[in-house]
Amino acid sequence: MRILTPDGEEREMRAVWFDDGIVKMIDQRKLPAKFEIFEAKSVEDVAYAIKDMVVRGAPAIGITAAYGMAQAALQNRGINEAYKILRDTRPTAHDLFYALNLMRDAIKNGGDPVSMAEKYANDIIGRCEKIGEHGEKLISDGYKILTHCNAGALAVGDWGTATAPIRKAHRNGKKIFVWVDETRPRLQGARLTAWEMVQEGIEHAIIADNAAGYFMRKGEIDMVIVGADRIAMNGDVANKIGTYEKAVVAHENGIPFYVAAPISTFDFSLKSGDDIPIEERTEEEVLFCRECRIAPKESRARNPAFDVTPAKYITGIITEMGIFRPDEIEILRR
Amino acid sequence: MRILTPDGEEREMRAVWFDDGIVKMIDQRKLPAKFEIFEAKSVEDVAYAIKDMVVRGAPAIGITAAYGMAQAALQNRGINEAYKILRDTRPTAHDLFYALNLMRDAIKNGGDPVSMAEKYANDIIGRCEKIGEHGEKLISDGYKILTHCNAGALAVGDWGTATAPIRKAHRNGKKIFVWVDETRPRLQGARLTAWEMVQEGIEHAIIADNAAGYFMRKGEIDMVIVGADRIAMNGDVANKIGTYEKAVVAHENGIPFYVAAPISTFDFSLKSGDDIPIEERTEEEVLFCRECRIAPKESRARNPAFDVTPAKYITGIITEMGIFRPDEIEILRR
Repeated sequence: MRILTPDGEEREMRAVWFDDGIVKMIDQRKLPAKFEIFEAKSVEDVAYAIKDMVVRGAPAIGITAAYGMAQAALQNRGINEAYKILRDTRPTAHDLFYALNLMRDAIKNGGDPVSMAEKYANDIIGRCEKIGEHGEKLISDGYKILTHCNAGALAVGDWGTATAPIRKAHRNGKKIFVWVDETRPRLQGARLTAWEMVQEGIEHAIIADNAAGYFMRKGEIDMVIVGADRIAMNGDVANKIGTYEKAVVAHENGIPFYVAAPISTFDFSLKSGDDIPIEERTEEEVLFCRECRIAPKESRARNPAFDVTPAKYITGIITEMGIFRPDEIEILRR
Repeated sequence: MRILTPDGEEREMRAVWFDDGIVKMIDQRKLPAKFEIFEAKSVEDVAYAIKDMVVRGAPAIGITAAYGMAQAALQNRGINEAYKILRDTRPTAHDLFYALNLMRDAIKNGGDPVSMAEKYANDIIGRCEKIGEHGEKLISDGYKILTHCNAGALAVGDWGTATAPIRKAHRNGKKIFVWVDETRPRLQGARLTAWEMVQEGIEHAIIADNAAGYFMRKGEIDMVIVGADRIAMNGDVANKIGTYEKAVVAHENGIPFYVAAPISTFDFSLKSGDDIPIEERTEEEVLFCRECRIAPKESRARNPAFDVTPAKYITGIITEMGIFRPDEIEILRR
């Protein structure tokens, strides 16, 4: 992705990469106020980076875990131990387990860990570009598109999932406008998606998550595109908390609701979304907004990080292999 | 309402009152971090307090405006000028116009302005207690109730509208639990409703607005009660931004959705919610979360403060005269 560095330099870079034995990544906790690179020098550092959301987004978590496995192999750490440490970071995103299994098998079969991880990263990013090419066809000139959370280049490495069709449409000269849900509690929309739109020069406005329904009802949203953390066989989709609400309200207003995700996000072992484990994160994320405590000191909070959107609210799933209805997922298994 | 002052003292007080020619109010911008009293010494001060949301909530805005008119009369300010200054503060809440018309007519008819304003305040608060009595019957022991924004004692003076049934149920010994939507962008839920729940000792948890749908789908919400800023003849309800989304998702999950409001909130001159003017506030409220900027400096935001929930999503409207279906509002006109 194209980045404008703080000194005004224009650079092409990825959200996470492997450099001289170190897993490096843009520190997504600090954006947009600060642009900093986080360096993970051990499998424990990599696990911390995933858990504390230095890096987040299902595909980027997968890539980071792949690099973490390669680093562990280079450092002669036990592969099963590294696997276990990385597996126990976050429970919902399927890409994490997909990448870990792939890397463990490859290393056990004597493959070169670093080139395997690079191949995995390049492969996912290439798949996301394909998602962009397929999804771009759904976007007409003048469209106003709502997205939730950040399923952007930062969440993948480059291109993004939900933002890949948006980036392609913009580069192809279509005039588009992006509504950015701020996405409490972690504000990935206001902080990260808005930052990406600024880098790419795409017209956008941030809204409180509460306002999406208002603009849908006023006819100011032509389509919704979101990412996914895990997709079950029946087409149910786990994604950032609030996705379910947006999908229901879009459905009620007859607005097409698309999910963009590479095949690595599909969990063919799960019959339905009810089987997807949902991470509940610390209440501090709700009780604080960035550094400010917003609630009485006596109050508690609940903080589910994801929800499940039933397939019936989803118009289509945009993958690297094309666009599918949720009930066509069976095809992808083959 | 019962307040625990910062020095641990227990006091019975209202959100806004008239004392020795000054309109005094709890500064709701500062809660829960600081408990401060704001003093409005002129009609301009009162207008500022309404506009800047020192005081907010439809019934409390009405009471504040009534005191503002009384103060203007005492200070020999032109009544028409005071009316105009106060009218131009906020466009959506109907109580503001209701109170201003009532006070202007009373003053012109030679009534005592201060006792008129006091009567108006006592009357609204009495009506809200009645809302509590009627609404309490809907709440079963063990209920988990979702509320959005703050339609509490702070938004009225005492009792609240949405919280009146909750307070009554709690005082009658029913075991209840309140889910508090934080309510971005101004966080009236996390800051004010949670603070009221703490004062009253009611069990509660704050959630990101995005999480309400998750808990509805899991069966952890038995009913929703919200307030209203204006209600049209067909039963459409304007209320804090996000109310519409919650109503649609509650409807989809078969969860009863109630609106609690005194008759002063009904605008019998409007056929439908489409006629209700919706205030759009400064984008800074979205771009900042309390004192922290959360978005890139290049990004813009949109900030509608209210939305309209169509009558079809509303189970009932709890008023001081009883509980009505939205299609029964005609009855109240008589």
